[in-house]
Amino acid sequence: MTTTKKLTDLQIASQAEMKLITEIAESAQIPLDAIEQYGRYKAKIDTTKISGSALGKVVLVTATSPTPAGEGKSTITVGLSDALKQLDQKVIVALREPSLGPVMGVKGGATGGGYSQVVPMEEINLHFTGDLHAITSANNALAALIDNHIHQGNELQIDPRRIIWKRVLDINDRSLRNIVVGLGGPMQGVPREDGFDITVASEIMAIFCLATSLENLKERLANIVIGYTYMKEPVFVRDLKVEGALTLLLKDAFKPNLVQTIEGTPALIHGGPFANIAHGCNSIIATQTARNLADIVVTEAGFGADLGAEKFMNIKARQGGFAPDAVVVVTTIRALKMHGGVTKTNLSEENVEALINGIPNLEKHIQTIREFGIEPVVALNRFVTDSEAELITILNWAHANNVRISRTNVWEEGGKGGLELAQQVLEILEEPQNFAPLYKTTDSIEEKINAVVQRVYGGEGVQFTDQAKKQMAQIEQFDWDDLPICMAKTQYSLSDNPKQLGRPQGFTIIVREVIPKLGAGFLVCLTGDIMTMPGLPKEPAALRMDVTEDGQALGLF
Amino acid sequence: MTTTKKLTDLQIASQAEMKLITEIAESAQIPLDAIEQYGRYKAKIDTTKISGSALGKVVLVTATSPTPAGEGKSTITVGLSDALKQLDQKVIVALREPSLGPVMGVKGGATGGGYSQVVPMEEINLHFTGDLHAITSANNALAALIDNHIHQGNELQIDPRRIIWKRVLDINDRSLRNIVVGLGGPMQGVPREDGFDITVASEIMAIFCLATSLENLKERLANIVIGYTYMKEPVFVRDLKVEGALTLLLKDAFKPNLVQTIEGTPALIHGGPFANIAHGCNSIIATQTARNLADIVVTEAGFGADLGAEKFMNIKARQGGFAPDAVVVVTTIRALKMHGGVTKTNLSEENVEALINGIPNLEKHIQTIREFGIEPVVALNRFVTDSEAELITILNWAHANNVRISRTNVWEEGGKGGLELAQQVLEILEEPQNFAPLYKTTDSIEEKINAVVQRVYGGEGVQFTDQAKKQMAQIEQFDWDDLPICMAKTQYSLSDNPKQLGRPQGFTIIVREVIPKLGAGFLVCLTGDIMTMPGLPKEPAALRMDVTEDGQALGLF
Repeated sequence: MTTTKKLTDLQIASQAEMKLITEIAESAQIPLDAIEQYGRYKAKIDTTKISGSALGKVVLVTATSPTPAGEGKSTITVGLSDALKQLDQKVIVALREPSLGPVMGVKGGATGGGYSQVVPMEEINLHFTGDLHAITSANNALAALIDNHIHQGNELQIDPRRIIWKRVLDINDRSLRNIVVGLGGPMQGVPREDGFDITVASEIMAIFCLATSLENLKERLANIVIGYTYMKEPVFVRDLKVEGALTLLLKDAFKPNLVQTIEGTPALIHGGPFANIAHGCNSIIATQTARNLADIVVTEAGFGADLGAEKFMNIKARQGGFAPDAVVVVTTIRALKMHGGVTKTNLSEENVEALINGIPNLEKHIQTIREFGIEPVVALNRFVTDSEAELITILNWAHANNVRISRTNVWEEGGKGGLELAQQVLEILEEPQNFAPLYKTTDSIEEKINAVVQRVYGGEGVQFTDQAKKQMAQIEQFDWDDLPICMAKTQYSLSDNPKQLGRPQGFTIIVREVIPKLGAGFLVCLTGDIMTMPGLPKEPAALRMDVTEDGQALGLF
Repeated sequence: MTTTKKLTDLQIASQAEMKLITEIAESAQIPLDAIEQYGRYKAKIDTTKISGSALGKVVLVTATSPTPAGEGKSTITVGLSDALKQLDQKVIVALREPSLGPVMGVKGGATGGGYSQVVPMEEINLHFTGDLHAITSANNALAALIDNHIHQGNELQIDPRRIIWKRVLDINDRSLRNIVVGLGGPMQGVPREDGFDITVASEIMAIFCLATSLENLKERLANIVIGYTYMKEPVFVRDLKVEGALTLLLKDAFKPNLVQTIEGTPALIHGGPFANIAHGCNSIIATQTARNLADIVVTEAGFGADLGAEKFMNIKARQGGFAPDAVVVVTTIRALKMHGGVTKTNLSEENVEALINGIPNLEKHIQTIREFGIEPVVALNRFVTDSEAELITILNWAHANNVRISRTNVWEEGGKGGLELAQQVLEILEEPQNFAPLYKTTDSIEEKINAVVQRVYGGEGVQFTDQAKKQMAQIEQFDWDDLPICMAKTQYSLSDNPKQLGRPQGFTIIVREVIPKLGAGFLVCLTGDIMTMPGLPKEPAALRMDVTEDGQALGLF
């Protein structure tokens, strides 16, 4: 027998020989007094003890529209970093923190795969250093303080029917989407309609990821609009005088987390908003800290370029005051075949026609990056089922269309499998780019949404529900419209209909609600049926999880 | 000017010169490879790397019924430990973890006071090492998995009207006591009545504190009853097959936390159930670890001896297989004066008569400890307002009634202020005790409750609501009655009426509900109006909290 059983991601991660986190810190030139260890292999960084002038270049990794075939964006992000390190670059990878919702639901893990993972995989996927819990606590403390204010006399005259602040949990729990609270009589609070979002959709998560300092964090928290009075005037967190308490609950979480890749590249993992229902990027404080320390920062934004990358460019880069210096678009032949009409069960069969039919999805995402003034490189994440004919098809297409493309094999080989990609990225970093956001914040809300719908999604235009129209009028009335927009849209399609794969044409986007997030500094636009609290599938990943008697995790993938 | 402004607990704690947690570990003979650092001053302990045979003696600190005057039980527990250390004893203090509910609500902090505190005070009071968050996550993951099971076809035929598993948050939030979930149509789950408890009342918190190993933790989680089928048969966590996932979420939290007192005594702080709505003791795994390492373990149980101490004796000691070797009953002249009828605003005036009227509360708690076969010592926690006449009154009373008593001044002096108490404790530890729980688990439920009501509360007997009677019949039908009981009762009175201070007589206790907690291994009896989710006061402590620009906490007390 010469075949070996393929190891799972958790097995590979468990077998990795990690360096002590103090060694990783030293290799990244982080002074030891800036390091607060969480066990041997995790640490928080006191950023006030890091000097530097944030000159590191930023490589953004994005992808085609996700399919059940898997694209491997985190895997490529990690593998590319390791490859750059092999090429003697001073590099740090900056990622988002996993949410327990998908971990317990479908995914089982969100830390890359194979030999391109961040470790300790198990701890990062479970509670890590508690940042998401701190955000959940702050969010729900605010909710309790609001309801308590009303119960105790309602001095601010908050209208219980017009509270827009929702509670959150870091779990997929559809039963909490629409609830009624405060039942049971006068001693049990004021009855009203309410609902829970998942923590990663919370405005506090967005604030946490966009704040540039502790002071700025507090200022942003104070600016949150929690609802309206009976006179329809906005009520801010600063009116409740609890921004200090919320900042206190967040102050330790706000320090970026240091871990390592399997190959020992320093990794900052901090903040974790989803890209479909939130802005989808790791924290600015982590990205800037990485730029203080390294010459190249490799970072990813969630889901396809229509979601995470669009928001990286229009929200994060704008608020952080930097520009992406290179963009990688990850795809796989399998994923493109699914966009071309193949079902998951038939993916192993060669199907050049389906591939050709699916390439327009990739084409649109490339075009999107070009809209922002950047020339991307495609990372083709290799799978064993890819046929030679399929491979030639996509390479020929790229050549014919002047698209840079690079085959990668980082799942199996780690950084070595990404050397060609790394070389191409280094070339791009030497070239001038002409980055610009897609719209000015002073454009009208409708103009801003149209810019994204037409130039990123490839749609015709946008329709608004009556509720959205009312909300937009109110936002304009309060002069809150000079802000970027944060689209909440299904990740599966460029349109707002998750069933339309590939590159849909001629569609319009329906904006259901427009919600002001003044702390985060953007306006959330809910489109289609997108839910800010996911549900669990019929067979949740939790059913496969276990712990051995000696404390080893099982069933994380 | 010779007067100095009195420092707050937070100021004293912030000025304390802490030793590195590795030094504390070394002083406690904890091998360094058993230590997982959380910053410089906190660590988790891998108990599998600690040898020893749990021979350390156990000193339990309890108190008179709490009043707004404050008794200082945690302060005495810490001060006594420091005093024992000053007397060259090998001592560890074992405490509960604070809940964010009271921290944000009334208390502002729960780590002792003055020069008898555990540190880092601020971090212990906020998120600490995330244990309560892990428990919240596990609890709510289970809730989501139950509702998802029903939504996805309900193979187990769970009756949505008969689910007894509630969601939890570590916050005081009265609006979540009674809610309706699953609204919004067929895609949003199954509508049903539900409610949130505070995390410290969760059965998972009780299991966490009573489990003797990781394996035992999983076994107990599997045994949780989450509700009943349409055929009224019980549904267990093991039927849902998610005990592995829940154990995975708890496995790191299950390692006890090591910190230090201001005087450098090692402190294990782990688990934190409230004593009014839960069993009120820190974890068995921490207590046993401390007994493996030290000759004396000083530990506290929540609220008065009618609550925490009763449950320490009847539940924790029984399940842990050890006995308390000495018991300290903490009281203050101020508190006894309140039990004697003085209002909080008049406490500074001398009032010997009120003191005499209040002493029966102390008398009952002493009698309670004697009921368990142990002769206690009273720790009189000194306040500046105590008059000489008041002091003589209580000392004379103690002398006349053969009660050991010791004046302490640990808030101001640290361990030095508790040396006399420590000497008395050491004497008691040399004496034989005749500890026995108050009832056999094989007694009927009614007999067990009566034993506690009559011999601990000093009441006449117990009345059951119709609901409680039905629940008891069901518990007997399923043969679940061979378990200790966990009374949920107001902490303010020996009776179930919080307004009856002092030593009420001739009362009966009304048991509203009897809820089986088979994972924890006890039956919860809800009495009077006790709530398993507290509310916030009119002026929550959160309003006073803040963070300075350089990250210093303000407003924790």
